[in-house]
Amino acid sequence: MDLSAKGSFLLSTGRAEAYYHDHAASLPIVDYHCHLSPEEIAIDKRFDNITDLWLSGDHYKWRLMRAYGCDEALITGDADPEDKFLAFADTLSRAIGNPLFHWSHLELARYFGITETLHAQNAKEICAACNEKLKDPSMSARGLITSSRVTHLCTTDDPADDLRWHREIARDTSFATKVLPAFRPDAALHIEKEDFAAYLERLSEASGTVIEDIASLRLALRRRMDFFAANGATVSDHGLDFVPFRDITEGEADAILQKKLAGQPLTADEITAFTCFLLLFLAREYAKRNWVMQLHFGVQRNLHPVLMRIKGPDAGGDAIGRRQPPEELAGFLQALAADGLLPKTVLYSLHPTDNVMIETIMGSFQGGMRGKLQHGSAWWFNDHEQGMRDHLTCLASQGMLATFVGMLTDSRSFLSYARHEYFRRILCDLIGTWVDSGRFPVGTIAEEIIRDICYHNAVSYFGFT
Amino acid sequence: MDLSAKGSFLLSTGRAEAYYHDHAASLPIVDYHCHLSPEEIAIDKRFDNITDLWLSGDHYKWRLMRAYGCDEALITGDADPEDKFLAFADTLSRAIGNPLFHWSHLELARYFGITETLHAQNAKEICAACNEKLKDPSMSARGLITSSRVTHLCTTDDPADDLRWHREIARDTSFATKVLPAFRPDAALHIEKEDFAAYLERLSEASGTVIEDIASLRLALRRRMDFFAANGATVSDHGLDFVPFRDITEGEADAILQKKLAGQPLTADEITAFTCFLLLFLAREYAKRNWVMQLHFGVQRNLHPVLMRIKGPDAGGDAIGRRQPPEELAGFLQALAADGLLPKTVLYSLHPTDNVMIETIMGSFQGGMRGKLQHGSAWWFNDHEQGMRDHLTCLASQGMLATFVGMLTDSRSFLSYARHEYFRRILCDLIGTWVDSGRFPVGTIAEEIIRDICYHNAVSYFGFT
Amino acid sequence: MDLSAKGSFLLSTGRAEAYYHDHAASLPIVDYHCHLSPEEIAIDKRFDNITDLWLSGDHYKWRLMRAYGCDEALITGDADPEDKFLAFADTLSRAIGNPLFHWSHLELARYFGITETLHAQNAKEICAACNEKLKDPSMSARGLITSSRVTHLCTTDDPADDLRWHREIARDTSFATKVLPAFRPDAALHIEKEDFAAYLERLSEASGTVIEDIASLRLALRRRMDFFAANGATVSDHGLDFVPFRDITEGEADAILQKKLAGQPLTADEITAFTCFLLLFLAREYAKRNWVMQLHFGVQRNLHPVLMRIKGPDAGGDAIGRRQPPEELAGFLQALAADGLLPKTVLYSLHPTDNVMIETIMGSFQGGMRGKLQHGSAWWFNDHEQGMRDHLTCLASQGMLATFVGMLTDSRSFLSYARHEYFRRILCDLIGTWVDSGRFPVGTIAEEIIRDICYHNAVSYFGFT
Repeated sequence: MDLSAKGSFLLSTGRAEAYYHDHAASLPIVDYHCHLSPEEIAIDKRFDNITDLWLSGDHYKWRLMRAYGCDEALITGDADPEDKFLAFADTLSRAIGNPLFHWSHLELARYFGITETLHAQNAKEICAACNEKLKDPSMSARGLITSSRVTHLCTTDDPADDLRWHREIARDTSFATKVLPAFRPDAALHIEKEDFAAYLERLSEASGTVIEDIASLRLALRRRMDFFAANGATVSDHGLDFVPFRDITEGEADAILQKKLAGQPLTADEITAFTCFLLLFLAREYAKRNWVMQLHFGVQRNLHPVLMRIKGPDAGGDAIGRRQPPEELAGFLQALAADGLLPKTVLYSLHPTDNVMIETIMGSFQGGMRGKLQHGSAWWFNDHEQGMRDHLTCLASQGMLATFVGMLTDSRSFLSYARHEYFRRILCDLIGTWVDSGRFPVGTIAEEIIRDICYHNAVSYFGFT
Repeated sequence: MDLSAKGSFLLSTGRAEAYYHDHAASLPIVDYHCHLSPEEIAIDKRFDNITDLWLSGDHYKWRLMRAYGCDEALITGDADPEDKFLAFADTLSRAIGNPLFHWSHLELARYFGITETLHAQNAKEICAACNEKLKDPSMSARGLITSSRVTHLCTTDDPADDLRWHREIARDTSFATKVLPAFRPDAALHIEKEDFAAYLERLSEASGTVIEDIASLRLALRRRMDFFAANGATVSDHGLDFVPFRDITEGEADAILQKKLAGQPLTADEITAFTCFLLLFLAREYAKRNWVMQLHFGVQRNLHPVLMRIKGPDAGGDAIGRRQPPEELAGFLQALAADGLLPKTVLYSLHPTDNVMIETIMGSFQGGMRGKLQHGSAWWFNDHEQGMRDHLTCLASQGMLATFVGMLTDSRSFLSYARHEYFRRILCDLIGTWVDSGRFPVGTIAEEIIRDICYHNAVSYFGFT
Repeated sequence: MDLSAKGSFLLSTGRAEAYYHDHAASLPIVDYHCHLSPEEIAIDKRFDNITDLWLSGDHYKWRLMRAYGCDEALITGDADPEDKFLAFADTLSRAIGNPLFHWSHLELARYFGITETLHAQNAKEICAACNEKLKDPSMSARGLITSSRVTHLCTTDDPADDLRWHREIARDTSFATKVLPAFRPDAALHIEKEDFAAYLERLSEASGTVIEDIASLRLALRRRMDFFAANGATVSDHGLDFVPFRDITEGEADAILQKKLAGQPLTADEITAFTCFLLLFLAREYAKRNWVMQLHFGVQRNLHPVLMRIKGPDAGGDAIGRRQPPEELAGFLQALAADGLLPKTVLYSLHPTDNVMIETIMGSFQGGMRGKLQHGSAWWFNDHEQGMRDHLTCLASQGMLATFVGMLTDSRSFLSYARHEYFRRILCDLIGTWVDSGRFPVGTIAEEIIRDICYHNAVSYFGFT
């Protein structure tokens, strides 16, 4: 297993190697969707030890350790950091075929200079070496972002957020990466949540708008979009069960809102109708601002009741949920296309078996610019090698792979940029194989396509400069 | 990229090459399902320029150009034909991994003798060369069919059609290809359509039967089947949302029909019940005549409202729709099997994720002849290399690939026969790989299977001689 | 095609060969789920001829022959055994890509010493050679089990069964294989069946408990579990349409039971609610006993009405049915996790497109031991090479492949142990390819993982010693 930066990991032919090393490897990164903390970037957070960095917040790793039967104390409990690292190392050493095996080793190699394979026997030593390395100032939040050559980075922010950390980062001219907010109005969309009314109060305050009906809710959201735009935002994001479509009037939406504000329970259909109504409003506003609308859907969250009670959300209890009803996705896009206000849209589905269906629906609404609708990068449970290959092959078969905006990080960790290398190696291997086998001509076009997918398409699509 | 007729395109081993060149390449073509115009064949249509031939009716190409951001004027608008060709050439040159890249280049190579890769720089020159070549009399509708060695060709025809062009073609003994009608009674099945009553009037007139209830509708359809049979038809076809099953009586079906004729709105369930009732009647009639029943399902049509308003249907606004409910497909086939009137049936699903399920249901109803039920060739959004490989592998895993009737053209273009070469190369590569890796023995049986799938199975299955 | 035991069949590299021959081939077999007859083992059944052994009960073969158009007399009818064998041989010789082609030839090679490829021309001779070989005492039921090196074998048994054959086998110390019962309470779960009340009477008698309500039904089942446990059972199994979840009280479940016992018809929802209630009860009992709960779901049975009427069930008329609703599987596991009584669970879905979803749901409930939840081996219509590769790759991507309990036989035939060789070769090829391509390090861990999946994980998971 050769994980050296100049090595052939995942690259099965000489051409694939040349594509990666000559065209992909040196390009910077656009991190257009992540869950990094702007505060941690602003204060340039330092990390005490590799256990914290690797295990304190990564539910991918927690799930793997649970599947391997580790005691929960060693996963999310109060065991000694070194013991936790040893338990993880033992788990990882047997995680054959799992993307964590590759990601973790790439992180060790690229950020810690460790190219050995981690296992129970060398774990103690590697743990110590990592902790030593973390004392290096280059291993701070900003140091890691800079050494990963990230030019743009979009966090995920609530409309009521004051974006103070973003403004602080922007003022500091010594840090070259642009750290931009992304508008994620989930709390306003999810009228089924118990704290919905409380959230509207927060939003009222942030927007200087008393929210008491749909009209004032829309005004408040528009004001926050303006505020986000003034702070550099060009991207929004939304977490949904599925992309909904119901054809309701503003009056009907308002009635549902009033019912909720009066403390009355809503039916499932009312919830869906309200979500759809508000999402259509938001989409049209994004279109007017030339923002990108990202839609993430198909998740069931917090399935394990004990885990949820003890650890809370994002503890590794999430899974693939219901499939996207094709006629609702079509209806939703149709409503926007009908009045010419379909924004740039990235669809992320957690169900890989919906990929083809989504791409054919999306393909019916393309036009006016390169790759206006995007089928987002293989996401979450799909961001392994097979998932990425399937996704890229499907994109190519159904449309213009050449316009794809490429890999997203979607991470809470400053080390996750290694996944861009993972993606780029897979992309170069796929295209290299196609060219080697005579499925696409040798020449500069294939090389340009690689560079575009790795970097340039995202810069242009998200309106970065 | 070697696209020469004798070349190794898509053939990864010497054995795969030998299979293709020695067994598949020289076989004629049975085009058992297409949308070619019998009038254009009868009048032996000529084509003015490659733009018309390639771009005037091909929604595959339109979608690709929209995804690449071409102006609609250059796609379906009134731009200059050469400019349209240039825009398409530029798009195609970047369509890595898309089947259009392969199909278009195969068409250039086989029909125009152009083996260069098309791109923005050489597009003008290639456009002119194609237009020059089109002046050759061999490039007429019949010329292209003849040079493609098509022995049988089934168009798609409404039961009310007078089949005058088919009769005219049949009278002309100078044209060797048999051009046969296929019976497609969609207008009679789709009772939900606004023009249903008007259609019944057309059908009444064509059949000499006043249609006023189920009994007279059945009589009218039977008479048209007899007329189609007298003109050589052995095949029917149907476009459905999904294969429906509802157990209703003739009286109930009649009540739905009367409601519709009285101008009253029908419920979704009534529509499905009527469609199922009539389709079961038709299926039994096909069984009595030893016709083949083709069922195409899983499509959502005309999704883009603006495109539909301006360009009408078949403009590239279609997508994969709802999945097939397994119990309805089973129930439908069960109803026919119960009384021994299950016809030869070809199932085409647009959802590739339904493939295995469909094949296992189908497998429960096999018997009495080789491959009585067929899972039709990878269709529409699935007719790319991966789609074909997946489909063939699934056929083989679940049943007798050796009885498969092979590739269908499903095209409006006289150049699409190049797709048969595409299919044959993929088939030979797949079987060649199996034999080379010791999964199937070297010998004449593998060769016979290839020849059967490429040509002989279809001749026999569709009752051609 | 080299099917010799020491050959490279399915093994594409030297490392894959070494893995198989040095690590997998010589391991014994744990047959933790089959449909072998304990009576046939107890009486050490002998077989008259290869036709009986191969064709008298194997609906896989029947389906293939029907797809090839063989006359039903030659499949399940009263044709001469040799003629049946010839018809099957002719069918098989053309079954390219079908797992039966491989399985049947492996069985010929391993049990009969015949390494020729079967076809119409040599079928008569091979038939005779097999029949001659069957006269050998080593070809009895026990002989075949012993020569296959099966250490543990779980049959599938009704709770009302007296397990007399199991006890008889256990008493015979000359037979080394442990033959254990598995608890399959389908008849108690399927309240929709006509003979449900009659079954409860049988169960009352067997358990010495008058069953007249939920409480007594539970008592009866608990008593039978104790009886099965006393006879060595550690495994249960259940056949379901889908894993259901409804939140009902014991009172509600009892009302449904009383309605049924009073001869009144039940609604679909009542049936599902009762099944779920009883299954949750059973699951908690399994957890208390540290038994494994197997759930098989996603089947439509006996689709062909004529086949069912003439031949009865298990005649080749089964297919993939409805998909698993993700929220019901999650809800079911949630209910058990909430009170800490989730047993070791193996989920077998017949829909391969549900694989990823099932694994992500399952992954949310892991913990406490290695691989507590298992996604069962590629099952029935999926137990071909592609199905196994897809399943193993998916397991690896979503969790710890290293903890997988491996292949199940699920067979009615004493020759089916050849499928373990098939699985092991595929597993070794997959892992060999990963190691050869630098996706996993060379070393002992990969070898241990192979040995664990082939044998040791199952021994430990099912509690065998």
